Order: sequence, then structure tokens, then C-alpha cells
Amino acid sequence: MQFKGLAVGVPKEIMHGERRVAAIPETVKKLVDGGARVLVESGAGALAYIEDEEYRRAGAELIRDVEELYAAADIVMKVKEPLFNETKGKHEVEMMHKGQLLVTFIHPAAPPNHQMVKDLAAKGVVSLTLDGIPRISRAQSMDALTSMSTVAGYKGVLMAANRMAKFMPMTGTAVGVIQPATVLVIGTGVAGLQAIATAKRLGAVVYAVDIRPDAVEQAKSLGAKIVETGVPAEVAVGKGGYANHLPEEWLLKEREAIQEAVKKADIIILTALVPGKVAPVLITEEMVKSMKPGSVIIDIAIDQGGNCALTVGGEVKEFYGVSIDGTKNIPGMVPVSSTWMFAHNIYNFVAYLVKDGRVVLDPDDEIIASSLVTRDGKVVHAGALEAMRLIA
Amino acid sequence: MQFKGLAVGVPKEIMHGERRVAAIPETVKKLVDGGARVLVESGAGALAYIEDEEYRRAGAELIRDVEELYAAADIVMKVKEPLFNETKGKHEVEMMHKGQLLVTFIHPAAPPNHQMVKDLAAKGVVSLTLDGIPRISRAQSMDALTSMSTVAGYKGVLMAANRMAKFMPMTGTAVGVIQPATVLVIGTGVAGLQAIATAKRLGAVVYAVDIRPDAVEQAKSLGAKIVETGVPAEVAVGKGGYANHLPEEWLLKEREAIQEAVKKADIIILTALVPGKVAPVLITEEMVKSMKPGSVIIDIAIDQGGNCALTVGGEVKEFYGVSIDGTKNIPGMVPVSSTWMFAHNIYNFVAYLVKDGRVVLDPDDEIIASSLVTRDGKVVHAGALEAMRLIA
Repeated sequence: MQFKGLAVGVPKEIMHGERRVAAIPETVKKLVDGGARVLVESGAGALAYIEDEEYRRAGAELIRDVEELYAAADIVMKVKEPLFNETKGKHEVEMMHKGQLLVTFIHPAAPPNHQMVKDLAAKGVVSLTLDGIPRISRAQSMDALTSMSTVAGYKGVLMAANRMAKFMPMTGTAVGVIQPATVLVIGTGVAGLQAIATAKRLGAVVYAVDIRPDAVEQAKSLGAKIVETGVPAEVAVGKGGYANHLPEEWLLKEREAIQEAVKKADIIILTALVPGKVAPVLITEEMVKSMKPGSVIIDIAIDQGGNCALTVGGEVKEFYGVSIDGTKNIPGMVPVSSTWMFAHNIYNFVAYLVKDGRVVLDPDDEIIASSLVTRDGKVVHAGALEAMRLIA
Repeated sequence: MQFKGLAVGVPKEIMHGERRVAAIPETVKKLVDGGARVLVESGAGALAYIEDEEYRRAGAELIRDVEELYAAADIVMKVKEPLFNETKGKHEVEMMHKGQLLVTFIHPAAPPNHQMVKDLAAKGVVSLTLDGIPRISRAQSMDALTSMSTVAGYKGVLMAANRMAKFMPMTGTAVGVIQPATVLVIGTGVAGLQAIATAKRLGAVVYAVDIRPDAVEQAKSLGAKIVETGVPAEVAVGKGGYANHLPEEWLLKEREAIQEAVKKADIIILTALVPGKVAPVLITEEMVKSMKPGSVIIDIAIDQGGNCALTVGGEVKEFYGVSIDGTKNIPGMVPVSSTWMFAHNIYNFVAYLVKDGRVVLDPDDEIIASSLVTRDGKVVHAGALEAMRLIA
């Protein structure tokens, strides 16, 4: 019995607008079948349309007071980083205890989270962040970041298509043919590729940009037309196949290369990220000005600062007739599919960490090493430590 | 010169939320080339992203005061029925004059429009309603109702997909396959067929219902699975191939027949209309209760009363966990494509009415007979007269 003797807690998410939850009845059942007690906060699944009764049938105990849940849990499974709980008048970290294992998206390098991460360490909470899981084959089933990027790419295109003042597909009518919309996807990682696929489904003409030759190949295989940036691979591609932070001269060249495609676009989906860095600004104010009135930009990269100079985080604003969408946490807006993927990912990760009723964290294991945030009263996450040093 | 000596006026639409306009630079140019003076109200195209300057370049005169425009125009081309203009403190009908030709959607049989229609007659305005244009081949290019139904079917599915808490397409992930969403389209006329096509594009499994065998065949040819209603063709099909108003016994049978499909649906698109009648209630409160929480109903039939018993006109409400969307005037939400089609349709209609600089209305012409609303100081529209008698 893998989880024998362990209590797993699943609190209700408290971030504003968050509709996901960290467990579904199917994963609760797996934990219970493995010997765990599973404590789910009442109403935790409500916004993802999962009723308390469904969790109960899967073997969970429903807990009304989340403080009790935090007190009893050996392992806490969450979606979002710990926040101040208005109802309790306490920070979620305050409700945790020494030796407790926390698994969630922590985003430990982001400055607003530094104090919370230090508090986790001070409490003696052992925390692992899901955004630290490396994109290697054996971690695929735990990779919640990839899952959520899939959702963001899909939903971003739907939001844009729904906001746009014209049709996406070519449409034959009695008075002539309506031309298809033109969609430009910048950054063709997981989110970008999903955006391309969704825009193609809807019948748009799709252009794609990436500085990494492999990513370009994948975009091409989905039927996107490629806008060449001219950035050499040795400059563009960094560790693990991710994009590098470009020197200013190359960034200028990239902007120049995409200028014409930006002008022509009805929709631009922005997903260009550089791991651990602020996202590059690829669309300047001048470039927005050059766009057609009524066009739509969805800046999925906003959580890392955004790819458009004018994006306002958490808001949809119009500049020069162009609607620029800085909605944060897009995956939370598709809670049923997001939750389904997330719950499986986090279950697989927790199952990877637990052997014979004990949490075993091998610091030499690449997956654990890169996701571990706090342990033994200390912050151990390299990115977080670097960011904290830079600020201090 | 077909339009020689005629002044054509294009006012800005004043209905709340309306973003369309009755002319685009391309149709303005055709009128001007044909000898007309075209008067466009300043800002008329703004919400469809057409600037005054574009109209001017096409040959239009821009008019700041709409009262001047109404005074000068021989022909007024509009999108929506005349309404009270808050800015002027006057009804649009008050600004019109004897002998003026008005072409727009009038919906003359709808009770809220009866007084306005009588006022048009009293003023001596000659009015034609675009919703009266018959669906015959030679009128296709003028058929704005068909164009707008195309928009409603497309946009209805996009709205639903964007509101839904899960993915539309089947999606392969590292933790398994997300099943495609199930979409049920009720009523497979122009709007319903477009809804089917759009839902298929997005990867949904699509079921369709109609009581008319021809409509069922068309739905099938787009790849929808058919839910049989069992209503015999002789009961179902009325004049012009439109659906009949069903006797209560057959309506009950139809509801029963679709019950299972309703339960399974993630999205229901409602488009079942009976010409000149209130739309049939096909989804009862009980049926909504049977649906999965998180499902979405878009009641495109709301302008004729709606196909769902719980729909609230002009609002999106949740009942039993099901979001029911009663948004009115959906085509106005896709103003660029709608305007493009509408402007061509109304131009073709007006061009059909004008010979050698004169408006010629042959009452024996089927197109004119069925679209004429007021003439020689009288209401002449059969549907409007019948509705007025019923109410008086």
C-alpha cells in the first residue's frame, strides 16, 4: 500500500477567479486505494463542477474547516501558490506545519512570492513547485506546466476569435466570399503549437514565429506559414532547447522581421518565454499602431511580463483600435479540462515521491532537484535564490 | 445612370449594442458611380471599424446632423427598425418625410413595433422590411436575413465554446485523451447548419434535430448525427419549406425524442423558428434540470421568444448549473463580417427597386409584395396587419 498512513489534503483554491482544484474523484480513489486518507475541503470542486458527494463516493473525507485540513494533512496538493486566506484572516502558510509536504505551482522566483517562500522555509514545510518539473520524457505525465500551456494556447485563440469583429473561416455567401482571418502566433512552444492547431481548426490562415529551428519545424508541420527571424540557432537556443534571452541587436532584428506579419494580422497570440527571465518585448507600441483597427492581441506571456509593450496584466484594454488582452491565469477559465489534466499530473508527481507510506526526496534525482523549493528550513530553489539575491 | 438624382442616406445605428452599419465604402462607391448622392452620418461606421474618411474617399458626403440627413434623403438604408433617438430627443420616424423610401429590418409583426409601423404609414413613408424578402433563388443576393442567420450560427457556437469549462476537440495529453464535447443543434435551417459546421470545425461531436426531412438531410451531409423526432413530414413542413407550428401532441413527442440527447449535451444551440409565430418551447425546465452542470445553452431563437422555457431575453443566466444565453442581436456582435454581407444585401435590394433614377415598386413582384410594409399612408404588410388585428 503505497500511501499507507498518509493523509493527503486538498484545499479549495482561494485565488480570485481560480476555478481549478488539485484532485478529481478518480485521483482521490487512487490515493484511497493506495491506503491514504484523503481530506477534501467542502466545495473545493464546485467551480469545476465536481460536487462534494462525488469526492465522498471516491473515498474522501469532506472537511468544512480548512485549518483542520492543513493541520491533519501530511501532504497538501494545491493548484496555486499559498496566499492570504481572507475568510480565515490567515495566510495559507500559517496553517501549514513542520515536515508537511506541499506540492503546487509556487513560482518561487517571482518577486511577489519571495516572502511567502521564506515563510514556507521558516515553517519547515517541504515544498515542491510544479513549474520546476523538467520537460524530460519520464516526467511527462507529471508535467502540469505543459498541460496548462496546452489549455492556454487553445483558450487564447477561442477568446480572440470570440472577440474579433469578423469571421475566422473563409465563408462563401450569396454576395461573395469572406476571406479567412489571419492569425500570427509568436512563440511556438506547447501553448503556441496548440494555438496554431486551434486557429487552423477554425479556418484561419496562420503564420508562426519562433527563433528555435525545432519549434519552427513543429509549427510548419501543423500547417503554419513561417515568418523567418534570421536569428542564428547558436544565438537562439539555450539549455534544454528553450529560447535564449536575445542580445538587443538580435531582438531588434526579430522585431523587424515580424513587422509585416504583425501589420497583416487580425489576431496575434503571444507565447514567447525565456525560462527564468522576463518575457521579451516583441511587439512595440509602434507595431500596435501599425495594426488594423479591430485586431486582437492575446498576450499569454503576461505572467512573465508579456510580449507586447502595451499589455496591462489582468485587463483587456484597447490601444489604437487594437484590443490587447492581458488576462492572467487563462487555464483557470477552462476548469473542467484543466482540472482533469492537472489532477492527473499532480497525482503522478506525488505518487513518484511516495514509497511505502513515506515521502522520499532524492536530491540527486533531476525531477526532484529542479522542483524542490524549501527543505530543512531553507530555500533551496536555485532560481528563487538567484532572484532573491538580485533584489536584496 | 441608375441612381441619377437620388439621395441615399445612411444614418448611424442607435440600437444599444448595435455595431453594424448599412453601407460600406464599396457599396457607397457603386451608388455614387450610379449617379446617387450618398449621405453618411459621421461616425456611422465607427463600431464596424470604417472611418468617415473611407466613406468620403468612396464619394460619400459626411453629415454631422442626422436630421439633415433624413431631410435630404430620398432613400434611407438602415440596419435596425426606427427607434427613439435619445440624442435628438426625437423618434427616427419623426425625422422622416412623405414619399421617402425606408429599407431596413422592420420586424413589423412584432407587437413592440406596431405603433412605429403605424407612424411610418401616417408619415407617408414607403417602407420595405428586409425580413420580408422571400428565400427564392433570384432574391438570394438581397437576403440579409439569411446572411445574419449565418453569423448567428457561427457566433453562437463560438460564444458557447468560449464559455464552456472544457475543451471542444478531442485532445491527446500525456495523461490520456480528453473526450470531445457534445453539441446538440436544434433547428437546422441556415443558422443551425452554420452552427453544425462551426462545431465540427472545433472538433465536437455534433447531434442535430429538425422536423423537416430536407433540413435533416443537410445536417447529415455536414456530418451531424441525427436525432429522429418521428414527426411526419406532412405535419412538420409548411409553406416555403419552413417548419409548421406543431400541435401540442407532436410537440410533446418531439421533446420526448430529444430528451436523451439533451442530457448528453455539453452545448445546445437553439434555432427552431416558425415563420410569423412565437418559437416553440422545445427545452422545458425539467429538461434543463437533467443536463450536466457546466453545460451551455445558446438560445438564438430568443428574438421570436426562444426555444428554452428558461431563457431570459438579453441576458445570460445560470439555472441548475446550466448557463442559458438569451443574447439578442448576435449578428451585431460580429460587425465587420455582418456589415459586409448586410451592406451588399441591402445594396442589391435597393438596386433592384430603382430604375432610371426612380423607385419602382411592382406590387405583383413576389419580392416586393412580401417585403412592403407601408405605402400610400397605409400599413400593407399581411403579417403585421394580422398581428395588429389579433391584439386590437
